[in-house]
Amino acid sequence: MKKRMLQGVVEMGHGSGGRTSAQLIEQLFIHYFDNAWLRAGNDFALFERPAGRVVMSTDSHVITPLFFAGGDIGSLAVHGSINDVAMSGAKPLYLSAAFILEEGLPLAELERVVVSMARASRDAGVPIVTGDTKVVERGKGDGVFITTTAIGVVPEGVNIAGSHAQVGDKIVLSGGIGEHGVAVLSSREGLDFRTAITSDSAALHTLVAAMIAAEPNIHALRDPTRGGVATTLNELAKQSTVGMRIDESAIAVKAEVKGACELLGLDPLYMANEGKLVAIVPANRADQLLAVMRQHPLGRDAAVVGEVVEDDRCMVVMKTRLGGHRVVDWLAGEQLPRIC
Amino acid sequence: MKKRMLQGVVEMGHGSGGRTSAQLIEQLFIHYFDNAWLRAGNDFALFERPAGRVVMSTDSHVITPLFFAGGDIGSLAVHGSINDVAMSGAKPLYLSAAFILEEGLPLAELERVVVSMARASRDAGVPIVTGDTKVVERGKGDGVFITTTAIGVVPEGVNIAGSHAQVGDKIVLSGGIGEHGVAVLSSREGLDFRTAITSDSAALHTLVAAMIAAEPNIHALRDPTRGGVATTLNELAKQSTVGMRIDESAIAVKAEVKGACELLGLDPLYMANEGKLVAIVPANRADQLLAVMRQHPLGRDAAVVGEVVEDDRCMVVMKTRLGGHRVVDWLAGEQLPRIC
Repeated sequence: MKKRMLQGVVEMGHGSGGRTSAQLIEQLFIHYFDNAWLRAGNDFALFERPAGRVVMSTDSHVITPLFFAGGDIGSLAVHGSINDVAMSGAKPLYLSAAFILEEGLPLAELERVVVSMARASRDAGVPIVTGDTKVVERGKGDGVFITTTAIGVVPEGVNIAGSHAQVGDKIVLSGGIGEHGVAVLSSREGLDFRTAITSDSAALHTLVAAMIAAEPNIHALRDPTRGGVATTLNELAKQSTVGMRIDESAIAVKAEVKGACELLGLDPLYMANEGKLVAIVPANRADQLLAVMRQHPLGRDAAVVGEVVEDDRCMVVMKTRLGGHRVVDWLAGEQLPRIC
Repeated sequence: MKKRMLQGVVEMGHGSGGRTSAQLIEQLFIHYFDNAWLRAGNDFALFERPAGRVVMSTDSHVITPLFFAGGDIGSLAVHGSINDVAMSGAKPLYLSAAFILEEGLPLAELERVVVSMARASRDAGVPIVTGDTKVVERGKGDGVFITTTAIGVVPEGVNIAGSHAQVGDKIVLSGGIGEHGVAVLSSREGLDFRTAITSDSAALHTLVAAMIAAEPNIHALRDPTRGGVATTLNELAKQSTVGMRIDESAIAVKAEVKGACELLGLDPLYMANEGKLVAIVPANRADQLLAVMRQHPLGRDAAVVGEVVEDDRCMVVMKTRLGGHRVVDWLAGEQLPRIC
């Protein structure tokens, strides 16, 4: 992959559909994402008949700043949609990417984003096979927004959904929380603190595949992004009409994340993660799943953090380090805007 | 479908992932798009194994104004991705929709858009099965941007691509050109002319299905959106390494479109269409295809407008009404920004 730095800035003509658009697509997107689907030059990508049930997921990415410790909007957009598809138990197969560019964005900056997407896509083994480019006037966008859609195939016998949590199930968390949120915050201009924390942004599909190989009967999976682990557990509790009991001392939080959150009055339970998953699993399979997860680079700190209980009010309750109990509610309002 | 007008405006909290986001999704998106996939509440939608090759296409929509004669950003977003998938010969099956909302957008305006999308999706028989909502600060977006992705299934024996045009093929156009571009222009504030023209925005998949039923061996299909018929023909010529000869007198242009274009110094050949298609078909099948197209409401004015010729410079040349010839080049720069 030849590295060049494109000159100039995004102009309205790059979104015209005419010659200037075609040049941008060739020099940037086809050049870096390089595959037969894009080279075919159609407005669609065509695949052979998939070998199973198909799953589809989409996410727009509007994170600011575009570049942060441990990632950028490009790698995040690839990981984000891969993870949403992986949370169904599926093997992600293909990605689409639609760009909304703001007039005046330096092309060199766009190129950095595209190079990063290309790398994330190649590392994950999930090609970007079709896309779109639009341009809006200065002040009508914010540099670049990227919407990715992923499709994948669910293996036979796998039946994972947010509504499948059962009383008695164990709640497994794949690692420490809050790292993406703190990394993005610390990258924002005007914020007066720095940490050594980098985003945990990562594609989780190989971790999920290893888990499913060990135990196809996982009940629910979800990646705790916006709203954090607290919101994800509340969503799952509501979907399954169950309660959740979690144990604060079992939830890993890096000292730097804890420090940054204390400084800013934020709660790590509500901070976004981009490379972690929550799994709701049969109690008698939890130990084996943990063993498998800990052998995977993205699951080394996996732990059982709680269990599913009967509760038709669908509450999430945490036993604190001091031995008390507190209700962990849905995120109200917003903790951090534009974190993904 | 109960009609309500939501109060208030989009706030940053609507993009938080927390309780406010959940309420917006329930009251607006699930309420109007209403289907089992959305009600399942997962970050993905799951389907049975498709009955053939799968095709995927994505488009971001940034049109301004949001509402125009004959449509709005919502119906356009549904038609746009359905059409891109249909241009492979596929039957569109499912849509995803990702929204980027600007803080301060009246919720009643968003509701109008969502109601329109719901209607377009239902009319087309293609449900919106998964989605995403993000919110950006005032001045970092423009009301609402919508990225739709469609997936569909290609029937056996159909093999349509931009690179399949062959010397001797006929070029078929499904109707009059330039209506979407003129309708949007005339809806823009500050423009001093009005026309009776409405956008041709429509879902073309049933027209395509009728054409394929009559003749599976269609070589190429494309909808001439941004950049118009001129750009589409140049793209197809380049992909297939052929030339195109078209006849101006065969191309339908409504008097109002012609009038508006003359007034504004624009060329209808470069104006966007959102409910037309160009088909490249074997010469000996053109008459039968025309007959089938003319029986469909969206193909009543279908006509053969030219033919594919040998030309390794891939030029598109038009015989004018006056009997001369002119080269129809790619759109250079931009004719109209944010037309889709």
